[in-house]
Amino acid sequence: MNLEIIKEISITSPEKIVMLVLDGLGGIPNPTTGKTELETARIPNLDAIAAKGICGLSDPIAPGITPGSGPGHLALFGYDPIITRIGRGALEALGIDIELGLDDVAARGNFCTIDSQGIITDRRAGRISSEKCAELCKLLDGISINGVDIMLYPSREHRFVAIFRGKGLQTELTESDPSRTGVAPLEVKAKQPSSKKAAQVINKFIAKAKTILAAHHPANMILLRGFAKKPEIPTMQEIYKLNPLAIAAYPMYRGLARLVGMEVSKTGTTFEDEIKTLRENYQKYDFFFLHVKSTDTAGEDGDFARKVKILEQIDAALPALTGLNPDVLVITGDHSTPAVYSGHSWHPVPVVICSKYCRTDGVKEFSEKAFLVGGLGRIAATQIMPLAMANARKLTKFGT
Amino acid sequence: MNLEIIKEISITSPEKIVMLVLDGLGGIPNPTTGKTELETARIPNLDAIAAKGICGLSDPIAPGITPGSGPGHLALFGYDPIITRIGRGALEALGIDIELGLDDVAARGNFCTIDSQGIITDRRAGRISSEKCAELCKLLDGISINGVDIMLYPSREHRFVAIFRGKGLQTELTESDPSRTGVAPLEVKAKQPSSKKAAQVINKFIAKAKTILAAHHPANMILLRGFAKKPEIPTMQEIYKLNPLAIAAYPMYRGLARLVGMEVSKTGTTFEDEIKTLRENYQKYDFFFLHVKSTDTAGEDGDFARKVKILEQIDAALPALTGLNPDVLVITGDHSTPAVYSGHSWHPVPVVICSKYCRTDGVKEFSEKAFLVGGLGRIAATQIMPLAMANARKLTKFGT
Repeated sequence: MNLEIIKEISITSPEKIVMLVLDGLGGIPNPTTGKTELETARIPNLDAIAAKGICGLSDPIAPGITPGSGPGHLALFGYDPIITRIGRGALEALGIDIELGLDDVAARGNFCTIDSQGIITDRRAGRISSEKCAELCKLLDGISINGVDIMLYPSREHRFVAIFRGKGLQTELTESDPSRTGVAPLEVKAKQPSSKKAAQVINKFIAKAKTILAAHHPANMILLRGFAKKPEIPTMQEIYKLNPLAIAAYPMYRGLARLVGMEVSKTGTTFEDEIKTLRENYQKYDFFFLHVKSTDTAGEDGDFARKVKILEQIDAALPALTGLNPDVLVITGDHSTPAVYSGHSWHPVPVVICSKYCRTDGVKEFSEKAFLVGGLGRIAATQIMPLAMANARKLTKFGT
Repeated sequence: MNLEIIKEISITSPEKIVMLVLDGLGGIPNPTTGKTELETARIPNLDAIAAKGICGLSDPIAPGITPGSGPGHLALFGYDPIITRIGRGALEALGIDIELGLDDVAARGNFCTIDSQGIITDRRAGRISSEKCAELCKLLDGISINGVDIMLYPSREHRFVAIFRGKGLQTELTESDPSRTGVAPLEVKAKQPSSKKAAQVINKFIAKAKTILAAHHPANMILLRGFAKKPEIPTMQEIYKLNPLAIAAYPMYRGLARLVGMEVSKTGTTFEDEIKTLRENYQKYDFFFLHVKSTDTAGEDGDFARKVKILEQIDAALPALTGLNPDVLVITGDHSTPAVYSGHSWHPVPVVICSKYCRTDGVKEFSEKAFLVGGLGRIAATQIMPLAMANARKLTKFGT
């Protein structure tokens, strides 16, 4: 659905929507048992929600396409992930909780090793410790070149994020990282005249970094790539007239929520913590995005039994959430992560919408197979928000 | 799915995809028995593949739209058949195994009969024999006009294909065939200035043909229509990074495969021959398109019993194919051809995808009705290739 149309017909209402995203929800059958993780787990509360709601399967992008976390979540928030692309640098910045301004250019960085001739001998500087990385970032952080302030944020091991903050920076740039050893780092070049200023500043910064790091072998140079700005996206306030809160233990998902205008709450590390945060903030907002990461991690690790156990733990914690009686409860994932596949996959994702006004179907079980004949059928993930909004009486008629 | 995106995320992998197209697969119930051809046939091997795979129904173009063979196959290869159109002349050329260059203009031709006033009395020249047609084509073949070489290829009875090979020919042209008797053949006119050269050459050629054929009553004139060039299509190598082989007994399907960049193998006339060819070439390619025509022909002839029998014969031959254990096996059709309808139809086409990573559904039987509740649901035929690619681990993540 075109967001311009949603914007035309959306209204504010007292009803509250809770969208619970179980990352990587949805699997494929274990070859031994013929059952998926959801079919294996004992999840009576999820089953009850499926029975009370309307169920189906959703494609985050399109059949056959495996989404990354960025596109998967944009789709859940109703944004076409093919139109709205998030560059690597920007996503990396979101992933470590950096707030990006509209003019900021973000880049992914590595500390690396160069020899006396300036040739790269190790693209990862021997995988220095995260502590060492933080120390070195401090040396380079706060430099200013041609009116552009440069900030460095350490990530894990040899990785960091660099932010270039100033006017007139564009991102049509080549990378300094040649993606191999045995050659010198590349000069950053502007692919468009409008990006010339950014190229100049970045090259000067790299030269300065080289001087500063000279004595810090093996981390005696940096490589930069994935130059990107934050995409300009109309906020959820603008489109849906919602007052949304994100509750997510992992920084990447807080970043994605911030990107679409959500407020972000502090919370703990467990699902129970997130529900507690939800309860504490329940009166102040009308849309809540809760994100659970552990389902995805277990799937990525190929740990079928752990994914089953985590689903059971989530199920056990659910009554504290459903006890709030949200007017609309959506439970789904941003993509499937079947333990058998050990990674994000293209398989459609189970989705249930529970409200006073949903047209219930005959589904009694929360599983991929049961949801095949659910009342939602097979939908695009971008259709979930309009459905949630409708169920919350937050969309007026289209036309008369 | 946008092919540009597939191109971005496709990679080469060792996995092999076999796409078996049973032309005209899919029917409607016989009014006497209430069962379709697939429901009537004893097809235990197809049933077993349905049980092992994920099943569904696909629309070649859109609900209600009956595709020709060209659009039907383009959709199966992942190309939007509404965007990529194949002109009649080009399709006719493909249909008799002519390799078209990018500059060539192809036209469909008829020998016809004119009277002493030049008025058409029979548009089909009394349906002269194919032998006679070949003889007459030789008289007109090899003529050169204004630097354009003209080649004639006999087809069946009074039909032939004319190829105009030279620079600067465009196809915005009216036809010389008035599509009725009692009038003279029409002059070919350029509908755009850029097509003027082509119009001149074609009119000169027709005048020359009239002189040459004068003594060959009833085939004493020609009619040309459907002027078309080969569409410029990115190849399957470019889009999917595949190394694809087509195995098809019928020239039209070899031509369609060549159009999208497939190599085309020699093969015999039966399905068993095609499987033998597949086995011989299995190590050398990573994508195989096998085409079976007889299902469609039986449907077109309205011969329900024959279509059932052919399905049973195909089923019996299948173990030689499945014995290769392709990583991904797709079985589908380019459109339905219900025997009860005696022609191509708009009914969605059964499709099954079988791989280690498909999310199996509860379907146990290869039929239109059973596939209604299959895990693929109802998809566009253009989505089959992305799904096959995903199952073969040939698509990386979209975004991060």
